[in-house]
Amino acid sequence: MSFTSAIHRKAVDIAKLAVEMTTAAGSGHPSTAMSLAHLVAVLMYHQMRWDPKDPWNQASDRLVLSEGHAVPIIYAAYADLGGMVIWNGKDKRPLSREDVMSLRAIDSPIDGHPNPRLGVPFFDAATGSLGQGLSVAAGLGAAAKIDGIDRNIYCLIGDGESREGQIWEAMDFVVDHALTNVVPIFNCNELAQSDWVSPQQSSNVLAEKAEAFGFFVEVIDGHDPHQIQSAFDRLHVVQNGNRPLCIIARTVKGWGAKVEQGTGKHGTAVKKDKLAAVLAELDQTAAELGVSNVGGGGELKIPLPEARVANPESRTPIRIAPFSDGLAAVGLHNDLAAGKPIAPRKAYGAALLALGAADERIIGLDCDVKNSTHAEWFAAKLPGQFLQCRIAEQNMVSVAAGLSAAGKIPFCSTFAKFFERAYDQIEMAIISSANIKLTGSHAGVTLAADGPSQMSLPDVAFFRSFCHTNNYDGQPAVRYFFPSDAVSCYRLTELMANLVGCCYQRTLRADVKVLYEPEESFDLGGFKVLREGKDICFVSAGYMVHECLKAADELAKSARHATVIDAYSLPLDTKGILEVAARSGGRIVTVEDNYSGGLDAEIGSAIAASGSDITLKPLYVRNIPKSGREPQDVLDYLHLGHKAILAAL
Amino acid sequence: MSFTSAIHRKAVDIAKLAVEMTTAAGSGHPSTAMSLAHLVAVLMYHQMRWDPKDPWNQASDRLVLSEGHAVPIIYAAYADLGGMVIWNGKDKRPLSREDVMSLRAIDSPIDGHPNPRLGVPFFDAATGSLGQGLSVAAGLGAAAKIDGIDRNIYCLIGDGESREGQIWEAMDFVVDHALTNVVPIFNCNELAQSDWVSPQQSSNVLAEKAEAFGFFVEVIDGHDPHQIQSAFDRLHVVQNGNRPLCIIARTVKGWGAKVEQGTGKHGTAVKKDKLAAVLAELDQTAAELGVSNVGGGGELKIPLPEARVANPESRTPIRIAPFSDGLAAVGLHNDLAAGKPIAPRKAYGAALLALGAADERIIGLDCDVKNSTHAEWFAAKLPGQFLQCRIAEQNMVSVAAGLSAAGKIPFCSTFAKFFERAYDQIEMAIISSANIKLTGSHAGVTLAADGPSQMSLPDVAFFRSFCHTNNYDGQPAVRYFFPSDAVSCYRLTELMANLVGCCYQRTLRADVKVLYEPEESFDLGGFKVLREGKDICFVSAGYMVHECLKAADELAKSARHATVIDAYSLPLDTKGILEVAARSGGRIVTVEDNYSGGLDAEIGSAIAASGSDITLKPLYVRNIPKSGREPQDVLDYLHLGHKAILAAL
Repeated sequence: MSFTSAIHRKAVDIAKLAVEMTTAAGSGHPSTAMSLAHLVAVLMYHQMRWDPKDPWNQASDRLVLSEGHAVPIIYAAYADLGGMVIWNGKDKRPLSREDVMSLRAIDSPIDGHPNPRLGVPFFDAATGSLGQGLSVAAGLGAAAKIDGIDRNIYCLIGDGESREGQIWEAMDFVVDHALTNVVPIFNCNELAQSDWVSPQQSSNVLAEKAEAFGFFVEVIDGHDPHQIQSAFDRLHVVQNGNRPLCIIARTVKGWGAKVEQGTGKHGTAVKKDKLAAVLAELDQTAAELGVSNVGGGGELKIPLPEARVANPESRTPIRIAPFSDGLAAVGLHNDLAAGKPIAPRKAYGAALLALGAADERIIGLDCDVKNSTHAEWFAAKLPGQFLQCRIAEQNMVSVAAGLSAAGKIPFCSTFAKFFERAYDQIEMAIISSANIKLTGSHAGVTLAADGPSQMSLPDVAFFRSFCHTNNYDGQPAVRYFFPSDAVSCYRLTELMANLVGCCYQRTLRADVKVLYEPEESFDLGGFKVLREGKDICFVSAGYMVHECLKAADELAKSARHATVIDAYSLPLDTKGILEVAARSGGRIVTVEDNYSGGLDAEIGSAIAASGSDITLKPLYVRNIPKSGREPQDVLDYLHLGHKAILAAL
Repeated sequence: MSFTSAIHRKAVDIAKLAVEMTTAAGSGHPSTAMSLAHLVAVLMYHQMRWDPKDPWNQASDRLVLSEGHAVPIIYAAYADLGGMVIWNGKDKRPLSREDVMSLRAIDSPIDGHPNPRLGVPFFDAATGSLGQGLSVAAGLGAAAKIDGIDRNIYCLIGDGESREGQIWEAMDFVVDHALTNVVPIFNCNELAQSDWVSPQQSSNVLAEKAEAFGFFVEVIDGHDPHQIQSAFDRLHVVQNGNRPLCIIARTVKGWGAKVEQGTGKHGTAVKKDKLAAVLAELDQTAAELGVSNVGGGGELKIPLPEARVANPESRTPIRIAPFSDGLAAVGLHNDLAAGKPIAPRKAYGAALLALGAADERIIGLDCDVKNSTHAEWFAAKLPGQFLQCRIAEQNMVSVAAGLSAAGKIPFCSTFAKFFERAYDQIEMAIISSANIKLTGSHAGVTLAADGPSQMSLPDVAFFRSFCHTNNYDGQPAVRYFFPSDAVSCYRLTELMANLVGCCYQRTLRADVKVLYEPEESFDLGGFKVLREGKDICFVSAGYMVHECLKAADELAKSARHATVIDAYSLPLDTKGILEVAARSGGRIVTVEDNYSGGLDAEIGSAIAASGSDITLKPLYVRNIPKSGREPQDVLDYLHLGHKAILAAL
């Protein structure tokens, strides 16, 4: 059987299985899957260097399915090839035909969209929210380049999906970093969900765009095995230069069965009573292509990867330089020695540099604000571990998810407000169990002068919602930190590196007093009682801890004594806090520089659940802020400064 | 004085004032402002048809400053021209030189970044989070096209900023809708915040990209008044065709004063002791240009708009067809008559159509999922009020902000999960006081089969955080709704249209029983007691109301009686709920299909603040879900179905 015939045969086989499994599921996207039949057949049976028995090999080529809803076509090929799955973290075995027929069932090893943590290690990241896959592929490609591993990362992108701006952020990133090991393949089947794609997403215009973005573009018939292979053969050429390859494949949605073509077929499985007819039409297509021999195509041979590289499973703790040494390395020793206030963002920069020096898996990522977040020190001293992502936060986060899948520990830094741009990408990374570390600087309202467009305000509520949800490892899906001084920021940054999973940290723009001894330790979920008094209990984090201390000083003048708690992490040990509060007058005032849903919700829910008679007075940002020249101006405007705290008692 | 000289003179004058005001503020971005001096001078003193005394005129040309940090150059021109401001909603007066010297002060009428609600009505939307302005401009342009108003919308975009994918979503949108009244102007000063821009954002590559996206591109020297004007003159040509104009302007960051040029000058005001030198250098530049006559340029004449169109301030209530008529209009009368379950998303589609028919200000926007959200009925019947945004949620939301600024009432629909892609854009629209309505379908976990990549789970916590913050009108920054049936969804959609500001509604994929009579009314913050019992109080919303009713039925079999509350909106009348709970055994169980931070936080905080002895048992999604074929499968997997509710008591 010729190569062309063998691919046609496999394309028909996997298309049939994709149709069957979605019919069994009662939902799914068979027509999109069918449009990818040949591209997937050439990739998985011939082009990619990989081993179905060892999808974990970090030296193998990878496939990122950005248009995640097309996943049945991958499952079909994977089952045909006996690709390994792990279900419930225990039984490692080849994916069977029976398995794929359980698609979308609650106890199936394969999920409705790609997810590395739900059975199939062939995937590196969860996809399904569109437009994110090329960034993940770029992260994998960047990691391979850093590690000197010869592997290619193929990424299948829908034409409709290519309307998402993040795709073009990723295209820029691939060119910026000359990632010729990353191959975007646009699947131009001309149909999106509810309509034909815009002319702006036609194969012609996509080709022009990709060329303008700096790619070497091949436009092909995505159902012609020879054209597909010829396009992949260009990889050798582009990899001798710096202009990456982009393939624009013209395909047919519902390829192989006319009844599955045209509009109205996007997210609909073939009904059980129509299944036989669709399968028969696919057989007819096979006959027309001269490949009616069932089981043909077996002579296709997957090239094995040349090496085996394991993704390190076990982790040794990363220990960084002592606080004073870390600060000295970035020129802050004089400030420290003089007892000057130090902005937590600077301590973050120092810790990040110390981490990178201690462990080469640490990768720093920035969106052109490294002189504000102080990731600049890392960038300057460890350029080989640093990736400049420019002003494109969505791409940065998904690149980090790709880096994580390749065993790196990516630290993303930008303004806390600008992470909001990537909340969807962050959630997709969380679903992927990606080991990403996010530090948002200029948190809260005390950046003051720039005004509300730069202030992170709903972020605490957003990230807290993940703190009370377990990820697939049974751990909080997010660990949240908000250090109040340089020491705690330094230590919590180190802690983040040693946790597995997504961590989010807020850092402050403003210089603030150092509150802790250099060797103080900070535990997960812990809190610090900075002062204990019998009359009232302030619970706060970050900048507002300092305002609470000032308020406590004021109170002391009238012989009232406040407890001040630095609640630097979520999920929080609320039981411990309620115990302290019970001996502090039974009244808690939470003080926050963000919108509702942070400490107020954490403590309020705990009080309500415990049946305790402690009461809560929550202070937080109750009005959209405006610019003020100094932090105190804005705090006073919002009735949140230490005077306002006292007035609220 | 020639045109060229007059523009040079104004450019120097406004650059000087921009430098002075940032020095007075002690922060800001003077060098970016200086790079825009000529573009702003030509636009505001010569090209734009507008009246500084009447910036409210909806027939005037508009300027959207996407790179919001450059705002001092606009303030300078606006003050020079005596543009009107409104501060604290009362004193309407021309912006003075004294005003601009108060830049960034807490009591200043001008904010650190553009904001229409903080003084300056020249702006249509708050900017400062980058990459959003062109979408806002496109919304303004689309509104003008719909209304048949001849106005042009100019948009200034930073080169570094153009890395944000949303810019390219907007470019596609402008071409798709042939918005030749929208003019993107890329300010290519080659420097971003922490570094030079990537070659991918060079003027050459940007020109190639814009051309590939379908624009007629003019590359000019952005400090040459004649070249700027010639580029604008192309507008007449492009407006006779369908290919919009894009201007790529090569500029100098820190134009006019060498000391302000090069890296390290981005977000830094000139120190007070260096101010005189910088101003002197600008004077020297004026002298070299032969325009040293202070006060020159006064002969520039701004063309007035041809008409005056007011943005309707007062609103008549929009009343839609009765529920049964509304459902009949979309073919659901038989389902209704037969007492069949009806998905709330379908009732939303019916209400949206009824709203659009009742008021032409209603604009429907979709991201290619209209057959899922059921915005498809609106799209089919009211094509002149419908804008297809394709798969680009960020652009959709910012377009809606632009439409709102032009007096429209935009309704955006997509999956609730996919709005997460646009949370930053939503917050910027909220800061702008935009009147946008967001309905996210397939909310929660009961969409089941597609899995977690399509499930909205942190959304309730995110939007709730805004519910307890007041916007500049003193109203909750967001009103949140989660209807449990078709009637409440229909009514709440109508309510959303009649509220001013941002509303977010979750709708369900699943068909659910109709719970309410067709004429039932639903109030802001209200709730419905569906059943009252003495033993326990279930508080829920959406799908989970039905599970609570089932649980209550089960309980009744063992003679225990539950209260069931449908808490369909936030902020919630928690006082009322605690009163009901007090007579329902003093124990509340909140039941939600989302992550923590929704009803659990709302009720928990209220209990804790009230000192009440009511206790709370919160049930919510505590694990990242997976696919299941039916809602009940997923609910059982997450221990959230009616059986799990009973087990938790």
